[in-house]
Amino acid sequence: MASRRVLANAIRALSMDAVQKANSGHPGAPMGMADIAEVLWNDHMRHNPVNPKWPNRDRFVLSNGHGSMLIYSLLHLTGYDLSIEDLKQFRQLHSRTPGHPEYGYAPGVETTTGPLGQGITNAVGMAIAEKALAAHFNKDGHKVVDHKTYVFLGDGCLMEGISHEACSLAGTLGLGNLIAFWDDNGISIDGHVEGWFTDNTPKRFEAYGWHVIPDVDGHDSEAINKAIELAKVMTDKPTLICCKTTIGFGAPNKAGTHACHGAPLGEEEINLTKAALGWDHGPFEVPAEVYAGWDAKAKGTAAEKAWNEAFAAYKTAYPELAAEFERRMNGDLPANWQADADSFVASVNAQAKTTATRLSSLASIEGYAKLLPEIFGGSADLGCSNMTEWSGYKPMRANKPDANYVNYGVREFGMSAIMNGIALHGGLIPFGATFLMFSEYARNALRMAALMKIRSIFVFTHDSIGLGEDGPTHQPIEQIATLRMIPTMHVWRPCDAVETAVSWRAAIERKDGPSTLVFSRQNLPHIPRSEDQIQLIARGGYILSDSEGQPDAIIIATGSEVELAVKAADELRAKGSKIRVVSMPSTNVFDAQDAEYRESVLPAAVTKRVAVEAGVTEGWWRYVGSNGKIVGIDHFGESAPAGLLFKEFGFTVENVVKHVEAVL
Amino acid sequence: MASRRVLANAIRALSMDAVQKANSGHPGAPMGMADIAEVLWNDHMRHNPVNPKWPNRDRFVLSNGHGSMLIYSLLHLTGYDLSIEDLKQFRQLHSRTPGHPEYGYAPGVETTTGPLGQGITNAVGMAIAEKALAAHFNKDGHKVVDHKTYVFLGDGCLMEGISHEACSLAGTLGLGNLIAFWDDNGISIDGHVEGWFTDNTPKRFEAYGWHVIPDVDGHDSEAINKAIELAKVMTDKPTLICCKTTIGFGAPNKAGTHACHGAPLGEEEINLTKAALGWDHGPFEVPAEVYAGWDAKAKGTAAEKAWNEAFAAYKTAYPELAAEFERRMNGDLPANWQADADSFVASVNAQAKTTATRLSSLASIEGYAKLLPEIFGGSADLGCSNMTEWSGYKPMRANKPDANYVNYGVREFGMSAIMNGIALHGGLIPFGATFLMFSEYARNALRMAALMKIRSIFVFTHDSIGLGEDGPTHQPIEQIATLRMIPTMHVWRPCDAVETAVSWRAAIERKDGPSTLVFSRQNLPHIPRSEDQIQLIARGGYILSDSEGQPDAIIIATGSEVELAVKAADELRAKGSKIRVVSMPSTNVFDAQDAEYRESVLPAAVTKRVAVEAGVTEGWWRYVGSNGKIVGIDHFGESAPAGLLFKEFGFTVENVVKHVEAVL
Repeated sequence: MASRRVLANAIRALSMDAVQKANSGHPGAPMGMADIAEVLWNDHMRHNPVNPKWPNRDRFVLSNGHGSMLIYSLLHLTGYDLSIEDLKQFRQLHSRTPGHPEYGYAPGVETTTGPLGQGITNAVGMAIAEKALAAHFNKDGHKVVDHKTYVFLGDGCLMEGISHEACSLAGTLGLGNLIAFWDDNGISIDGHVEGWFTDNTPKRFEAYGWHVIPDVDGHDSEAINKAIELAKVMTDKPTLICCKTTIGFGAPNKAGTHACHGAPLGEEEINLTKAALGWDHGPFEVPAEVYAGWDAKAKGTAAEKAWNEAFAAYKTAYPELAAEFERRMNGDLPANWQADADSFVASVNAQAKTTATRLSSLASIEGYAKLLPEIFGGSADLGCSNMTEWSGYKPMRANKPDANYVNYGVREFGMSAIMNGIALHGGLIPFGATFLMFSEYARNALRMAALMKIRSIFVFTHDSIGLGEDGPTHQPIEQIATLRMIPTMHVWRPCDAVETAVSWRAAIERKDGPSTLVFSRQNLPHIPRSEDQIQLIARGGYILSDSEGQPDAIIIATGSEVELAVKAADELRAKGSKIRVVSMPSTNVFDAQDAEYRESVLPAAVTKRVAVEAGVTEGWWRYVGSNGKIVGIDHFGESAPAGLLFKEFGFTVENVVKHVEAVL
Repeated sequence: MASRRVLANAIRALSMDAVQKANSGHPGAPMGMADIAEVLWNDHMRHNPVNPKWPNRDRFVLSNGHGSMLIYSLLHLTGYDLSIEDLKQFRQLHSRTPGHPEYGYAPGVETTTGPLGQGITNAVGMAIAEKALAAHFNKDGHKVVDHKTYVFLGDGCLMEGISHEACSLAGTLGLGNLIAFWDDNGISIDGHVEGWFTDNTPKRFEAYGWHVIPDVDGHDSEAINKAIELAKVMTDKPTLICCKTTIGFGAPNKAGTHACHGAPLGEEEINLTKAALGWDHGPFEVPAEVYAGWDAKAKGTAAEKAWNEAFAAYKTAYPELAAEFERRMNGDLPANWQADADSFVASVNAQAKTTATRLSSLASIEGYAKLLPEIFGGSADLGCSNMTEWSGYKPMRANKPDANYVNYGVREFGMSAIMNGIALHGGLIPFGATFLMFSEYARNALRMAALMKIRSIFVFTHDSIGLGEDGPTHQPIEQIATLRMIPTMHVWRPCDAVETAVSWRAAIERKDGPSTLVFSRQNLPHIPRSEDQIQLIARGGYILSDSEGQPDAIIIATGSEVELAVKAADELRAKGSKIRVVSMPSTNVFDAQDAEYRESVLPAAVTKRVAVEAGVTEGWWRYVGSNGKIVGIDHFGESAPAGLLFKEFGFTVENVVKHVEAVL
């Protein structure tokens, strides 16, 4: 049987070899954390390489994602479907082993990491999901949800502000199912960290209410093992295990320096390192004995089998709950969803309410959350402004795990990346809200949701100068346009309660990507629609009102400006022009429709077009073309009552009419 | 003489009255912090209401900017040019008292605050600036730079991740000139914070190396005064004074609850509050005795006079340093700047180097920093990748204040908002660098720089899929386009060393707004230009190469894609087409040129246009029009060597030629 050190050296060797072959990458962190990983994965992690989707597996997150060869090595060695050939393709086009671990590529990668601090935050989300699901589904004698989330993180993660947001909240929520390992190697890209990072990290985490295990030698397997044992029994606090490590452990000339952080060691240093480690094997060669020491397939299969049996007993005792658990972990909606959602949208239409879309959004949450217990909401300390606290909301507290909501506090980025972790865990559909302006604080988490193609629902209210007196620091101008540009993101800006209900429905039904829902602070009138038109909302853009025959001009509008478009069209028609009004709640979704549909809404022959939106004009040129005009705002707002601002900045029926007349 | 409490009540009364009149705003924080503000401003702040720009004034930052009536009250009461009529116009269109304190509106507002956490971070920047300038300019017996930065902040600021980044770094740098007051009122918008914010904040700040004064009664003037005295003598650590306060202090029914956080108290509660406080005056009425107690004009004028005399003595002893101090605090460039910068650009052109623009950027920093000692650089732990460590760089350490650089650590948002604070302080021109992708972490600080129209220079390298193997988490796609949309921001994406030198020069010369400089990781060839063309770079877009007569088609390109455009044009010309190539390093700057110039570069008559940029296509429709085409990338990248990626995604001469032929 290979010793622990020899097993760990397999990670070191594979990491050095793969980075060398790719001629780029980060060998230092995998080499430094190999001993910790060996103890954790061989003695503690409950997972099954044969079924990476086993619902009750422990989650593992490599928050210092640049050390990707660490996780690829672990997945390969323990028996996941990731071959030595895959490792040889590290960082190559269309390989399963990209430079940073990417969700959906190699099996066993639970989240995409690399942008620092977001991995630990995703992990907090996973732990929140586990805590909520355990409270919801577990019954006396039936612990069907019972797993840990383990995280590796480095100094970089700890310097990032998002680590404060996530870890502070994790402490407050008492996430005893979360165990983090700090790779305390004293090195970041600029060199020895003492010039820019002198936090007393154990004290910092104690201040958050964490269980902190300081001063663990990250190369002493016994010490690591003991720390993990201690962490596992602490069930009401998250644990931080502080591991002193040597970056690039084993490399005679580069260990302990930033020379091994982000570049290949070079053939010579690799050979010297292998000699020093006593690893007498060629590149990508791993002896059978070492593979045997790592192989987790039998143990994992047995663990899953035991759980399957426990789940079968649960199913017998609680058949409905068990079926619900399976449905939710599969990410499926209930069988009656389509019919119920149809009814809900119809009822909203029948009510014909004039109200702020943030209130319409609350009504939608109210309606859909009744149908979907997996809706898991929250707000970054703006519940009463974002209108996210529906009648059935149950905020999570440390001692109240049975929850469907998180008071995220003033932590927009943290909230968004936590939502991603919740979505990745499965069993819940997270939404989280703040003011649209503060999407900027969270922006890269939205992008990560889009990159991972996961169902996070980002809710942003106060969507324009319409928020009024809070002024330019809070008034979105360029935000909607820039959010639409995130690849695969679906941004919705509904114009009334009916479009709001349809937008929410689309976000819920979308299994392969995130949605961003943008709502007004101020009242917007109900727009009457035919049944057919209601169906068409889901296509992102549709004809809201029309004249007979080919229109002379088309007005395209979104959200609060649809009302202006409708009224301007009425005036222009009264003067004899043929005007079409297109409501475009989601340009992203409209763009994804077939060419025929798009042509039916925006015929190429009609080049006289005006777009109206209380935001930057930039994104609209594609729709209005060279002959078109845009009523928008390309400068910062002002602090004043909203009504005055719309007038001041030209969002009036009169001005829309003027623009249409200018193109006619 | 009015008592301290009566003086403080003037703030409470004005805040209640103004919020009530505006029918919106936040009375709770000003009422809660009034006693602290009274002690600080009347007994400690060195400032001169008659000259808000006195260089050696103490800086005051209201990080919880929603409590804006606190600072407006202070400025009005102490004698700044802000009348009672201005206070009555609180939150009204074109007033000097917008909903959040905005830089450039009311005199004495040192920075725009509102987006939580950024105020304390700006303050860290101001303190860094003071520390660096003191080290540079002060001489034995001549302390011409010697002031404090005071900050008020609330629970919201402390929850935000950026507070971690800023305060951690402030501790590491030992900023003894920074004194922060935590408004510990236990309330945020969602209610009592114990459900979402349970940090042991004193312990957290001790972990950062701060001097923490816990448990101060924020309504006990003696205790506050004593704490400030203690803070002022601690010169090698920043101080956090933890003040227990009651939000909405004095309001009989709403104090201590979130009911007074963000809404008017109502006439009735205002009357009850005034009665409880013994403030027997109508709305906006302040007795002469109270004004007298606050008036800081005489004291401020005397303080400035004393400093002016000290500065005169310094000027006699060190005439050159004194002149340099005056020049730098005025934000002026040296008299020989234009000539020297011309020479530098000419020398870069003469070298005709093929190199990565991130290296060209380093050469520019090297060249300009020699001319401008006020250049104050930094990187978020990527100095060797961003290429920011020029030969004369001196990183600041706690015990090495004589610096022109900060190792910001992995703190992108913190870095950017600190840069804003440095720019606001004056005397330095800050730049800070990270990978372009991580502009997303910092995005709202860039927007704040644009809103404040200040000279922060944001440097972003690794600007496209050209970064290669690190993959889609690190490859910018939509970032350049979205940064261009920030109102007043100037984004530059130069194509070679010469454009890089001109971009840097433009950023340095721009006194009324920030610039974003975007550089490649990979090599880009030198493009030969005439003298005239070199002059035209500064106009944002110019004709790089042309055919005789009116062109058949125009290719517009930026950065690394200019090379493709040039080669494609050569091929197309060889086939007989008349092709113009336009290099467009800054669309923002080009858009600001007069119509005649723009028409000379992009004649309306030439509608056959192709834009080429390794980013989203969205922003280019405006330039290519309905008949145009765009070679861009509207999906996420991949992990692979850069050369392969450019080919894979269509950034080839062949593909550009194909697109031009398609429009021809």
